[in-house]
Amino acid sequence: MPEPDFDKRGGLVTAIAQDVHGGQILMVAYMNREAWRHTLDTGFATYWSTSRNALWVKGETSGHRQRVHEILVDCDQDAVVLRVEQAGGVACHEGYASCFHRRVEGDTWRVIAPRLEPPSAG
Amino acid sequence: MPEPDFDKRGGLVTAIAQDVHGGQILMVAYMNREAWRHTLDTGFATYWSTSRNALWVKGETSGHRQRVHEILVDCDQDAVVLRVEQAGGVACHEGYASCFHRRVEGDTWRVIAPRLEPPSAG
Repeated sequence: MPEPDFDKRGGLVTAIAQDVHGGQILMVAYMNREAWRHTLDTGFATYWSTSRNALWVKGETSGHRQRVHEILVDCDQDAVVLRVEQAGGVACHEGYASCFHRRVEGDTWRVIAPRLEPPSAG
Repeated sequence: MPEPDFDKRGGLVTAIAQDVHGGQILMVAYMNREAWRHTLDTGFATYWSTSRNALWVKGETSGHRQRVHEILVDCDQDAVVLRVEQAGGVACHEGYASCFHRRVEGDTWRVIAPRLEPPSAG
């Protein structure tokens, strides 16, 4: 069974979560082999937290789980796209639909989306 | 002028290129400060090649340049989304529209998009 190339970058591959409906990019994180297998086994996005050095079942605390509809793998096998259904419509621990809620506008960054919830543990 | 947090991961941030029209995720790469500034200055996606250790103006060789319409920054400031117009409609050096042209289907990966061109230097 093929799997991403975990040897290339110290055991991790890049994982991008994209809303399966609108196509919005929700967040980017990392997966190790354990997170990859947990995602395949459960059908819910699971990452490897590089800050906590621990498996991170997205939304386990906040309820903002990501049901995986489809997984795409890139040509280099060191990045994947998870096409997900985002529970609660909030992926970002800061309470936004997407972690990418700021736009570069000239010399400033402007928040371009509403905060839907108070910040949480993600 | 704000900029991504290049100190967090050894001088690099993750850069995701997304088709500004259809929303398809085209590729993921890295940017250092030089690539970031080059992108802002020129309006064309520029990455840092971690394999060649060199600035990588996407499409400089192949012609498959990416005109940047919008840049989004994530909550942690260590990842950006470039919303781009992909010249030639081919982002992947293997000749596909997107580097993410394989889908996980059970125990196999299946190519789900047509190859539009022969493989190139990217």
